[in-house]
Amino acid sequence: MRVGVLTGGGDCPGLNAVIRAVVRKGVQEYGYEFTGYRDGWRGPLEDDTVPLGIQAVRGILPRGGTILGSSRTNPLKTPDGIRRIKDNLAKAEVDALIAIGGEDTLGVAARLHDEYGVKCVGVPKTIDNDLSATDYTFGFDTAVGIATEAIDRLHTTAESHMRVLVVEVMGRHAGWIALHSGLAGGANVILIPEQRFDLDQVCAWVTSRFKATYAPIVVVAEGAMPKDGEVVLKDETLDSFGHVRLSGVGEWLAKEIEKRTGKEARTTVLGHVQRGGTPSAYDRWLATRFGLHAIDAVRDGDFGLMVALKGTDIVRVPISEATAKLKTVDAALYEEVGVFFG
Amino acid sequence: MRVGVLTGGGDCPGLNAVIRAVVRKGVQEYGYEFTGYRDGWRGPLEDDTVPLGIQAVRGILPRGGTILGSSRTNPLKTPDGIRRIKDNLAKAEVDALIAIGGEDTLGVAARLHDEYGVKCVGVPKTIDNDLSATDYTFGFDTAVGIATEAIDRLHTTAESHMRVLVVEVMGRHAGWIALHSGLAGGANVILIPEQRFDLDQVCAWVTSRFKATYAPIVVVAEGAMPKDGEVVLKDETLDSFGHVRLSGVGEWLAKEIEKRTGKEARTTVLGHVQRGGTPSAYDRWLATRFGLHAIDAVRDGDFGLMVALKGTDIVRVPISEATAKLKTVDAALYEEVGVFFG
Amino acid sequence: MRVGVLTGGGDCPGLNAVIRAVVRKGVQEYGYEFTGYRDGWRGPLEDDTVPLGIQAVRGILPRGGTILGSSRTNPLKTPDGIRRIKDNLAKAEVDALIAIGGEDTLGVAARLHDEYGVKCVGVPKTIDNDLSATDYTFGFDTAVGIATEAIDRLHTTAESHMRVLVVEVMGRHAGWIALHSGLAGGANVILIPEQRFDLDQVCAWVTSRFKATYAPIVVVAEGAMPKDGEVVLKDETLDSFGHVRLSGVGEWLAKEIEKRTGKEARTTVLGHVQRGGTPSAYDRWLATRFGLHAIDAVRDGDFGLMVALKGTDIVRVPISEATAKLKTVDAALYEEVGVFFG
Amino acid sequence: MRVGVLTGGGDCPGLNAVIRAVVRKGVQEYGYEFTGYRDGWRGPLEDDTVPLGIQAVRGILPRGGTILGSSRTNPLKTPDGIRRIKDNLAKAEVDALIAIGGEDTLGVAARLHDEYGVKCVGVPKTIDNDLSATDYTFGFDTAVGIATEAIDRLHTTAESHMRVLVVEVMGRHAGWIALHSGLAGGANVILIPEQRFDLDQVCAWVTSRFKATYAPIVVVAEGAMPKDGEVVLKDETLDSFGHVRLSGVGEWLAKEIEKRTGKEARTTVLGHVQRGGTPSAYDRWLATRFGLHAIDAVRDGDFGLMVALKGTDIVRVPISEATAKLKTVDAALYEEVGVFFG
Repeated sequence: MRVGVLTGGGDCPGLNAVIRAVVRKGVQEYGYEFTGYRDGWRGPLEDDTVPLGIQAVRGILPRGGTILGSSRTNPLKTPDGIRRIKDNLAKAEVDALIAIGGEDTLGVAARLHDEYGVKCVGVPKTIDNDLSATDYTFGFDTAVGIATEAIDRLHTTAESHMRVLVVEVMGRHAGWIALHSGLAGGANVILIPEQRFDLDQVCAWVTSRFKATYAPIVVVAEGAMPKDGEVVLKDETLDSFGHVRLSGVGEWLAKEIEKRTGKEARTTVLGHVQRGGTPSAYDRWLATRFGLHAIDAVRDGDFGLMVALKGTDIVRVPISEATAKLKTVDAALYEEVGVFFG
Repeated sequence: MRVGVLTGGGDCPGLNAVIRAVVRKGVQEYGYEFTGYRDGWRGPLEDDTVPLGIQAVRGILPRGGTILGSSRTNPLKTPDGIRRIKDNLAKAEVDALIAIGGEDTLGVAARLHDEYGVKCVGVPKTIDNDLSATDYTFGFDTAVGIATEAIDRLHTTAESHMRVLVVEVMGRHAGWIALHSGLAGGANVILIPEQRFDLDQVCAWVTSRFKATYAPIVVVAEGAMPKDGEVVLKDETLDSFGHVRLSGVGEWLAKEIEKRTGKEARTTVLGHVQRGGTPSAYDRWLATRFGLHAIDAVRDGDFGLMVALKGTDIVRVPISEATAKLKTVDAALYEEVGVFFG
Repeated sequence: MRVGVLTGGGDCPGLNAVIRAVVRKGVQEYGYEFTGYRDGWRGPLEDDTVPLGIQAVRGILPRGGTILGSSRTNPLKTPDGIRRIKDNLAKAEVDALIAIGGEDTLGVAARLHDEYGVKCVGVPKTIDNDLSATDYTFGFDTAVGIATEAIDRLHTTAESHMRVLVVEVMGRHAGWIALHSGLAGGANVILIPEQRFDLDQVCAWVTSRFKATYAPIVVVAEGAMPKDGEVVLKDETLDSFGHVRLSGVGEWLAKEIEKRTGKEARTTVLGHVQRGGTPSAYDRWLATRFGLHAIDAVRDGDFGLMVALKGTDIVRVPISEATAKLKTVDAALYEEVGVFFG
Repeated sequence: MRVGVLTGGGDCPGLNAVIRAVVRKGVQEYGYEFTGYRDGWRGPLEDDTVPLGIQAVRGILPRGGTILGSSRTNPLKTPDGIRRIKDNLAKAEVDALIAIGGEDTLGVAARLHDEYGVKCVGVPKTIDNDLSATDYTFGFDTAVGIATEAIDRLHTTAESHMRVLVVEVMGRHAGWIALHSGLAGGANVILIPEQRFDLDQVCAWVTSRFKATYAPIVVVAEGAMPKDGEVVLKDETLDSFGHVRLSGVGEWLAKEIEKRTGKEARTTVLGHVQRGGTPSAYDRWLATRFGLHAIDAVRDGDFGLMVALKGTDIVRVPISEATAKLKTVDAALYEEVGVFFG
């Protein structure tokens, strides 16, 4: 049995832990051989492979990123893409494919399996934690940890200068990183894409915080948006889809808060540091278990499925079900956390 | 409504986060007043209280330990203990009690409620993660993170000198910290109390690691034990219960490995650093949610229950059920992880 | 003897360590009393004081920021500022003043002492490490550590996507943070304000790095500037002094590199996280020793001086000498480090 | 020109940074070739070499330990050792040798140069910071940082249980790590090998700390010793030289404090975690500069010298001078820090 492995989409701490677990168990327990594909779907599309064995995965557990490289190449949008992948897999005598990635990468795997009979097993990966069908995804805990540490640091500078500090974190469509790091970091306002925010309310929270003689920290997900009509975003802070541009909302918000409350406000955009570097212990544990169970699914012939976390168990669910719907922060949870605002 | 709060047993990162959440929500949403009891059950027993309000819980979220202090005082073993507690609560006009603690502390709360009608809500706390009825307890993730970072550091020193490094971590009755940190740290052997170890097997794993030209890391829970008959532990490494004495098994193991394999071996006993200091973001999230839900249980009149994590939800379960049985590592999970041994 | 203490300018990890050392030694060894002034020179100017004793400084050693608050208020630019300060000090019976701050704060202290006879002792503080007369200032090591950790994290994301990552760090007039963190983080290009950079050279280094099949990290100080004539910066990236606007150069550089090399480039602006949070062990050591020696200077009647680090010794130098000239990275040191570029 | 490189003695964060700098500058600027010797002096003694070039040093900057391995082999104690080293160097056409190590390793290099004409350049390495002729050695800052973080963590557990926590850190002959980490960590007692301690005084400090309602942290260097006559150490805590055995003084001290003050006391022995893992930014800077200057010394034909830090400069000093005398904590500095005891 020869198994192909690829990692697609944005990089994420824990990818290497998955690869290592897949290969270690596959080689040692089942005697499988492996083919690494470079840069996500570009690999099988262009037959760009790399040898993958016990030696290649030594020492990679604590390393961020992915030794296989990644890309956003989508074979469904490439002329003749599917046929080329099938041909290349056949040529390389690859019997099954483990695709590690987010909504897009797994969506391709689901169609390859469901419509073209390619034997795929999925491993969910999104730093934003917004894939349904799994309680958590690896990389998320690391990102939350990095953001929380940054918020911890910003408290002292906010207090020393009695300034508002706006921290923009990742989360274009879901506010999980903002919610978790904002709560863990003791933020006074947390703004997420799922709930359009009322600028007057934000300013009221900020002002009330100063009355308690403490300086406020505002955590905002990059995809958070103010309520319609209330403010007009300038063109340059909207992208071509009319969304607030990456890196835009934090700076815009600081300016508005400063203007409306008269308090000095500064922005920090955490950016790519949230997705790089060594994975947290939690993410290494989760990613490793995902890898061990993915290779078991291959052995069991359970294709078209992806591994997922349910409580403390790793289970298997249809990929198509898992990618059908974004997992967002529901109103009840946001309200639960809201007791700390202001 | 006046609510008493106490923290019992060994300290644990996240205790302050629970206290803060209880008080913030209790005061702001429900208008409750609070009485802090010092040093676990010693507080209500001796009527030793401390004022507890919004001001007292400011800034404590990222701080380890507990602002209320802790102790192992057990009122059930104190003459007339229960009556004194009931009297002191009545005198202080405390209507309900939130007890944050492990098996012992919660066991007292359960009996106070079940047998004496004291209105108690429990919040589970054990750094060892060995309480059943909850997926995880706070403090555990922090401890695993600290142990993993230590193991990461020890790899380089092991490799540079081609030595065996034995790391003894917490876990007297359950191997959760050893299992998680050992896996996350890429250990080559993990020994837990649930599975008596075979010293020959351990030495075989150690030796095989050197053959692959890498130096081995052995993670051992403080409560791990060799198989009967195989070795004789000297008196001084057994405590009065016949258990391996705290700090004993790691050093003993290093000596045995050195003697049997001829390889230099060193021990590191992580000890109290595992339970101190700022909680991880995960533990702050979990502890805060436990606190928010505990005060909701008080409001709902749901006494005799404790809060617990199930998947991503906080639920309520009878305290007595939760403390009836230790949650240990089952054989299947240990075997799953075993693919990385050797 | 009553001693006033104030902290001026931008906050910096280690300020609290200085305050604690001054007060602990002053009270315990010399029996002094203390008056804390709020928000730098605003405190003595407006007679805004806060009690400062052993109790106030408990537990502040590991905390970032300053318990006294800070501001950029300059009494020399305030009508009648000097007289008001002298009057307020006299009214509060403050005999001597310890001013902890950077060029501006110390400049005021020097003039107060030299021209108006106010008994001042200075403690140098600049996160940028650009004060002459001292080998290092506290806060710098913490900032370098934070920036280095961020660069470490960015390596894996750069490699996984074969992208250029531009990291903008603090340093408006001096490139110390960029130089130290860039070297420690294994950056492939380091750009500092002291040496105008050649964009073609930067792009050549970036391209050569990709040829070695590694992704480049470019560390740029916020005050770094391209060579004249070579490129035209758009208005909005210049501030009113014609300098590159804070947060501007990193993004501009990424765009230019992307345009010229055809490689994807991303920017991370570290911003305020570099100056917040707990000080490194090095900074706690240095700040504490500065504090101990500053109170000794008060006892010795050595006014008009500031403490400074020379090798491993703390010495005293005239404040005016120390603030006369910015300490910048000299060409030889930059060249020494240049072996790692490309 | 072919240059040999070896690392001897205990491993230390920053060794790889030195090796990388030596090779990068040697190859790129001077066109040298390199031979890596394995495991310190064992390498040239047994002609055990490893290829060393640009590729071998990629990515090693942030990694602890040494890619060359280390040992305590002493060729001066090996029959015919010197002749074999000279022969092996000649056979491998190695023109000059860079020896990175502590007192022992450098002592061999000095004799090889002074007495046998082998062209050696030294790079000082000791995690204990006890080599004279250099202000600091790399590895020390990392060790102090790790110890300080541990002490930070232990504070909260000490306070929660009102216990004494004894932290044993490295330092057999010099108390630098204890002094720096104890000061940075806010310890209440610091005990170093240079000053025999008075157990009554230690207990008085501990007791006074409790009176201020805070729990004490005692930092003790592994080589610290009580005053003669005052106590009798049991045989098993003395090594064959009559020194307190490694890991002995901390536990002994906790027991004595507990017995004499009636307060619960616990010990944490930090051990090998202090010398492993990624070097701090400071150590990467220092180690890299040492490497750059060592290869310059080779180019300049400056043999028999070692590089050293003086203030912010790297200078060259005779190896023999540097190793003649241990750099210990002098009484004045210990007294300066003593203001924080109790």
